[in-house]
Amino acid sequence: MSHNSFGHLFRVTTWGESHGPALGAVVDGCPPGLRFTLEDLQIWLDKRKPGQSRFVTQRREADLVKVLSGVMPQEDGSMITTGTPISLMIENTDQRSKDYGEIARQYRPGHADYTYDIKYGIRDYRGGGRSSARETAARVAAGGIARLVLPDVKIRGALVQIGKHKIDRANWDWAEVDNNPFFAPDPKIVPLWEDYLDEIRKAGSSVGAVVEVVAEGVPAGLGAPIYGKLDQDISALLMSINAVKGVEIGNGFEAAAITGEENADQMRMGNDGKPLFLSNHAGGILGGISTGEPIVARFAIKPTSSILTERQSIDADGKNVDVRTKGRHDPCVGIRAVPVGEAMVACALADHVLRDRGQNGKQR
Amino acid sequence: MSHNSFGHLFRVTTWGESHGPALGAVVDGCPPGLRFTLEDLQIWLDKRKPGQSRFVTQRREADLVKVLSGVMPQEDGSMITTGTPISLMIENTDQRSKDYGEIARQYRPGHADYTYDIKYGIRDYRGGGRSSARETAARVAAGGIARLVLPDVKIRGALVQIGKHKIDRANWDWAEVDNNPFFAPDPKIVPLWEDYLDEIRKAGSSVGAVVEVVAEGVPAGLGAPIYGKLDQDISALLMSINAVKGVEIGNGFEAAAITGEENADQMRMGNDGKPLFLSNHAGGILGGISTGEPIVARFAIKPTSSILTERQSIDADGKNVDVRTKGRHDPCVGIRAVPVGEAMVACALADHVLRDRGQNGKQR
Amino acid sequence: MSHNSFGHLFRVTTWGESHGPALGAVVDGCPPGLRFTLEDLQIWLDKRKPGQSRFVTQRREADLVKVLSGVMPQEDGSMITTGTPISLMIENTDQRSKDYGEIARQYRPGHADYTYDIKYGIRDYRGGGRSSARETAARVAAGGIARLVLPDVKIRGALVQIGKHKIDRANWDWAEVDNNPFFAPDPKIVPLWEDYLDEIRKAGSSVGAVVEVVAEGVPAGLGAPIYGKLDQDISALLMSINAVKGVEIGNGFEAAAITGEENADQMRMGNDGKPLFLSNHAGGILGGISTGEPIVARFAIKPTSSILTERQSIDADGKNVDVRTKGRHDPCVGIRAVPVGEAMVACALADHVLRDRGQNGKQR
Amino acid sequence: MSHNSFGHLFRVTTWGESHGPALGAVVDGCPPGLRFTLEDLQIWLDKRKPGQSRFVTQRREADLVKVLSGVMPQEDGSMITTGTPISLMIENTDQRSKDYGEIARQYRPGHADYTYDIKYGIRDYRGGGRSSARETAARVAAGGIARLVLPDVKIRGALVQIGKHKIDRANWDWAEVDNNPFFAPDPKIVPLWEDYLDEIRKAGSSVGAVVEVVAEGVPAGLGAPIYGKLDQDISALLMSINAVKGVEIGNGFEAAAITGEENADQMRMGNDGKPLFLSNHAGGILGGISTGEPIVARFAIKPTSSILTERQSIDADGKNVDVRTKGRHDPCVGIRAVPVGEAMVACALADHVLRDRGQNGKQR
Repeated sequence: MSHNSFGHLFRVTTWGESHGPALGAVVDGCPPGLRFTLEDLQIWLDKRKPGQSRFVTQRREADLVKVLSGVMPQEDGSMITTGTPISLMIENTDQRSKDYGEIARQYRPGHADYTYDIKYGIRDYRGGGRSSARETAARVAAGGIARLVLPDVKIRGALVQIGKHKIDRANWDWAEVDNNPFFAPDPKIVPLWEDYLDEIRKAGSSVGAVVEVVAEGVPAGLGAPIYGKLDQDISALLMSINAVKGVEIGNGFEAAAITGEENADQMRMGNDGKPLFLSNHAGGILGGISTGEPIVARFAIKPTSSILTERQSIDADGKNVDVRTKGRHDPCVGIRAVPVGEAMVACALADHVLRDRGQNGKQR
Repeated sequence: MSHNSFGHLFRVTTWGESHGPALGAVVDGCPPGLRFTLEDLQIWLDKRKPGQSRFVTQRREADLVKVLSGVMPQEDGSMITTGTPISLMIENTDQRSKDYGEIARQYRPGHADYTYDIKYGIRDYRGGGRSSARETAARVAAGGIARLVLPDVKIRGALVQIGKHKIDRANWDWAEVDNNPFFAPDPKIVPLWEDYLDEIRKAGSSVGAVVEVVAEGVPAGLGAPIYGKLDQDISALLMSINAVKGVEIGNGFEAAAITGEENADQMRMGNDGKPLFLSNHAGGILGGISTGEPIVARFAIKPTSSILTERQSIDADGKNVDVRTKGRHDPCVGIRAVPVGEAMVACALADHVLRDRGQNGKQR
Repeated sequence: MSHNSFGHLFRVTTWGESHGPALGAVVDGCPPGLRFTLEDLQIWLDKRKPGQSRFVTQRREADLVKVLSGVMPQEDGSMITTGTPISLMIENTDQRSKDYGEIARQYRPGHADYTYDIKYGIRDYRGGGRSSARETAARVAAGGIARLVLPDVKIRGALVQIGKHKIDRANWDWAEVDNNPFFAPDPKIVPLWEDYLDEIRKAGSSVGAVVEVVAEGVPAGLGAPIYGKLDQDISALLMSINAVKGVEIGNGFEAAAITGEENADQMRMGNDGKPLFLSNHAGGILGGISTGEPIVARFAIKPTSSILTERQSIDADGKNVDVRTKGRHDPCVGIRAVPVGEAMVACALADHVLRDRGQNGKQR
Repeated sequence: MSHNSFGHLFRVTTWGESHGPALGAVVDGCPPGLRFTLEDLQIWLDKRKPGQSRFVTQRREADLVKVLSGVMPQEDGSMITTGTPISLMIENTDQRSKDYGEIARQYRPGHADYTYDIKYGIRDYRGGGRSSARETAARVAAGGIARLVLPDVKIRGALVQIGKHKIDRANWDWAEVDNNPFFAPDPKIVPLWEDYLDEIRKAGSSVGAVVEVVAEGVPAGLGAPIYGKLDQDISALLMSINAVKGVEIGNGFEAAAITGEENADQMRMGNDGKPLFLSNHAGGILGGISTGEPIVARFAIKPTSSILTERQSIDADGKNVDVRTKGRHDPCVGIRAVPVGEAMVACALADHVLRDRGQNGKQR
C-alpha cells in the first residue's frame, strides 16, 4: 500500500504534521556509494522555504534537514550512502497554534477539514495537520536524494502561469528562473505578476498557477508498461501534491485539438549516427517509456484555499458558519510548488532508473 | 511492483497482446457473495468493441469475455463471487498479421515501437503487441467486476471534445450518450462531429479528443492521503490508458486561472440535515478524500498515431524511412476510450471502497 | 497486496480452482530475450503431475501448460520472451465433482473448509476449490519461467523424511532422486518407504514428510535487508505451500542447540584467490544476503488431511458430523511437494536476481 | 517493495544503524481514535532493553521512544492516533565506536560483514551498522502500536530452549515468564539455564535458543490465501529477525512425523453453541486463515556470532585473518528475541485485522 509512501525501488515514506515536533521522510532503496553534503539537500529546501518574498507565506521556518541514517559520515563533513534507508528529519520551529484555535471545528472551504473528519472522525486542525503543504518539505528533501541517483539528468521547474497571466514561451530563459521571486522563466512577465500578486495579497485573496517541469538527459528506455508507465508515475506524484487539479505530459490537452499529422514527432538519423526526434509533442515519453527527449510535465495548482474573505461553510456540529482564514498564507501557493514538482519528477525518474539497472548492486 | 497490475485491495493484472491467442485480466480481491451474469460484463465490452460505426476501427472482434475462476456457477446461469481471484479471458479472433508485416522493423511515429525496442531489444510488432489499445478490453472487463463492488455508484463517461470542437455543456443530457456513435452528451454537436470525422477518416488522418467521466453516489471519506489520494489514483489509471496526455479533476487547469473566492466550494447544511456543497469545482475530492459530491475527471487523448500520410522516421537498422500506417485504425481513438475511462474510474473507486470497509469480510 | 501474487520484480499471480475450467499464472517481469520451448515448462509439471505412482493421488490430469502471452513464437516452435506478462494456463480435465458432493457442507478436519466459510461465507467445495493443492501446478509452471532467469543456478529438491523415517545423509546422491517415486536422494531408504507408504495407503491413512531444496550457483550478494531478506522471502514462499508447517534455512532448528564456535562458518582465501567458506551451517545466507554457498532450505509438510478414517467435525449448519474423506488422495502429499518447493525457491531467486541487476534492460 | 518495510495495511518502515544518531520506525495505517501513552510503548522496549541481567549484552541504552507524528496530544499526557503515519524515534546513546574500529575490514564469521560488502561495496562497520540487532528496537516500538489495534488479543512469548536444554512443557506457567531473566515459562529450568549460560558467558562463547509466541483471542477468519496466508506472513516476519534460522507454526516439523489421524484437529459444537476444536496441532491456522484457536509460532535463533574464541576468516583485502569479537555481546541473543517475536506477531495480526475490517474507517 502506498498511503504515505511512493515509488518501488526508490521508495519514499513521509510523515509529520504542520504543527508536530518535526516532519520527515525515509528514503529506501538509494544505491550505495553516493557522496553528498547536507548542503546538497538544503539547497532544494531553501527554494521551497517560506518567508523568502512577500508573495509567499510569512511563516518563518528554517527548514533545516538532518540525516539520521543510511550514510557513513566522512572526515570532510560529507556523507556516503550505504544502501540502507536514509532517514531525513526537519524540525518544526515556528508553530503558532493559536492562529488556528478558532477554526478547530470549522470546515474551511477548499481545505481537507471536512473530508478528514468524515474519514477519520478526528483531525489535527493545527495548521491543517497532515494535509498541510508543509508535508512537501519532506518531498523536497527526498528529491534531493533522488537527484544523487541522476547525476546526468537536469531537472528544472518554472512557473508558467499565474491566474490568467501566462508567460510568453518565446522569452523562455532558464537562467532567469532564479532571478525573480516567482521562478518565472520569462523576465518580462515579472513586473506584471508582481503587480497582480500584490493586489491579490492585499485583498487577502489568492490565485492559481501552472508549473512546468522539464527533465533533460533522461536516457531512453525508462518506464514500464502497462501500469508502471513513466508518464503515469510522474502524473500520479504531481497529482499527489497539495492543491493540484490537473497534469499534462508534453502537449497535454492541446493534443486533443490537433490531427495525427500535426502531433506526430517525426524522426531522422542524426549526423552523429543517433536517432533524432524532430519535435517533442510527446513530452519525451511514448507508450509509457522515455524516448531520450526532454520529459515535459505541467500541473495546475488551484488558488490557496485560505483567504480572508468570508465564505459560507459548516462546522463539526452541523451548524452553518462563515469562515475567514486568518494566519500567514501564500497568496499563490503555486510559486512554492515549483521545487516540489521538481522533486516529484526526480523521485519518479530515480525509481525508474533503478528498475532499469537494478537497485542493490554497486554503482555501475 | 505494478508493471502490469494496479490497485491495492481491488487488484487487477492484465496480460496479452494484440495478435496473441488471447488477452485477459486477473481480478484479485473482489469480495465474495456478489452475483452477476456474463452479460453484466459483456455490456461494457460491447461499448468498447471495434467495428460498431464508421468512426472506429473496422477490425472485427467479438470480444466475448470468459470467466475462468473465482465464481460458483449457479443453476440459473449466473455466478457468485467466492473471494478468490477472477480470471477473465477474451480470445483474439480477427488477427490479420500480414497487415503489419512490412512495419516489423519500422518505427511508426507516435507509437511505442522505438521505445519498446530500446527498452526490451525485442518487440511483438504485430498490431503493436502489448502496446496495442486492445489491452484496454481487459481493463473494461475488470471494470465490469469493479462495478459489482459499487452497486450504488453510477459511473458514466462522455466525449466532450473532438479536435477543436467542444460540446456545449448547457446541452448536456446523459440520456443522449448512447444515441450517437460518439458517446456525445450534446445531441446538437453530433452532425458537426460526423462531418468532421468523415473528413478526417477519408483523409486517412486522425484527431484527438477529450473524455469526461462522472461518478455519482460515491460516499464521502474515500481516499487515502498522502500518496493514496483518490484523485491521484484516478489520474494515474486514466494516464495509463493508451494515448492519454493529460488528466484533470474537477475544474482542472481552469483552477489555475481563478481566485480563491471563485474556486471555493461553499457549504451549507441542507434542509435534510445533511451537509451541502453549493458548487463542485473540486470534482468531488478535497485533500485526496471524496466529499460525497460527484467525482469529475477528464482526460485528453492524442490523435491516433496510425495515419495514412507519410511521416519521416527511422527503422531498427538506423536507416531513415518514410512510414505510412495502413491497416484498420480508429480515426479518433478517443471515442472508444469512453468505456475505458469509465472502467478505470470504477476500478479506482472499488479499490478505495475496499480499503475503507475491508476486503475479506462478508458483504456488509 | 499479495493475496494471490508474490514477488516484486519477478511477480507471479495465480488463479483457478480445483474444479473450474482451468487454472493458471501470470508471470510479470520476466526479462526479454529468453528462448524456451513448452517442454522446458512441461518437464516440471510432469514431475508434479498426479497419477505417476501408487504413492500419489490417482486423479488423472494431463497438466498441459499453454503460453497465452508474453512471447514471440519462433519458426522452430520455440518462443522468446518479450518482457511483457507471460500468461500460463492449465486446463482441468479430470473433475469428478460427484466425489465431493456429500461434503459440500461438512468441514473436513485439517482442511480449509471451516476457515473459508468463516472468512468468505461461501466456498467452492468441489475438490477444495481454491485451497486445493492443484493450485501448486500454477506455481510449478511459473517456476519453469523463473529457471530461465537463472541459467547458471541449479535448483534441486529431495524428500528427506517420510513419517519418522529419515534418509541417511551419508548416502545422499542427487542422481538417485529421479530413480524412485519419492524423489529420495538415498536409494537405500526406498524399500522401507515403499513398504511404509503401502501400509499407510491401504489403511486409507496419510503421513507427513520433509522436503529439502538446494540451490547451487547462486551469486553472492542477493537479498535485501531488512524485510526483503533472501531467507525471509524463501521461507514465506515455502510456508505458503499447502500443508507446510515449518521452514528451516541451513542448519535451522539445529542452530538453537549449538554454540557460536560450532555454528560459525569459518572462511579462508581459496587457492583460486576466491573466498572460501569452510562449512555452510548458514545455508548460504548471512544477514539476509547470499554468500555464494549453496542455499539450503527445508520444509515440513503435514499429513494429507483427507483420510478414510472417520474424524469428528461439524457442518455448516452447526451440527456434529463424522467425516470420512473419500476420493483420490495422496497418502503423502509431501512427495509431490518436491517440485513445488523447487519452483518456490526458483521464483524467490529470480526475483532477487532482478532486484540486483534490474528488470527491464536487455539481458546482460 | 519491502526492503525496509513490511505489512500492507498496517505498514511499518524501519530505519537506523547501531551507531548512528538514532533509529526508528514509521507506522503507516494505524486506525484513528486509539488512545495510548508513551508508557504503553516503553513497556515493550524495556523488555528488550540491553543490560538488564548478566545474561544479555551490557551495552547501556535507555531506549526511550519518542512519538514524532500521527497523534493528537491530550491534556492528560496521553495521545490519540489520527490515522496519519506515526513516526517513532529511539536515540542511540551508548555508542562505543572504538570497540569496533579494529574489525572495520575484517569479516566476522556468522555476521553480515562479508555479504554487505559484496552487495553494497560499503558498510557501516560500527556495531554491525544496519545489520545490528539494535534494529529490532524499532520493531518492538512498532509492535506496541500494533497491540493498540488488537485490544482483545493477548500476545505472549517465552523462551522454550537454550542450547540443548528444553523446558518441560508440563510446567508451563505464563505467570513465571517475567519472574526470571530468560522469559522462561518453566520455573524449574531456570537454575539449570543460569548455570549453563554463566558457563557460556565466562567462556566468551554463545548459544542458540528457541522462542515460542502464542496469540490468544484472535478472531477466526484472518488471513488471505494464497500468498497472504496468516502463517506465511507471521513466518516471514519471524524469519526476518536477526539470527533466526527456522520457523514453525503449530506442531511444525513434528507434523512430518505423524499420521493424518494423529494430526487432525477434530471439532465438535460446544455447549455454548460455538464450534470447538478438540486439539490445536494446526497452531490456529488452516488454509492460511485463522481458526479462532490460539496462534502458536516458534522460531530458532542461532548462537550469537560475536564470540571471544578466535575463528578463521578473511578481510576486505582478501587476506586470511583470525577474528575474535570483543565488545559487549549477548551470550544468548535468543533471550532478547522474545519481545521481538511478540512484536512481529502483533504486527502481522494487526495487518490482517485491518485487511479484514478496513483501514480507514472509524473504529468499529
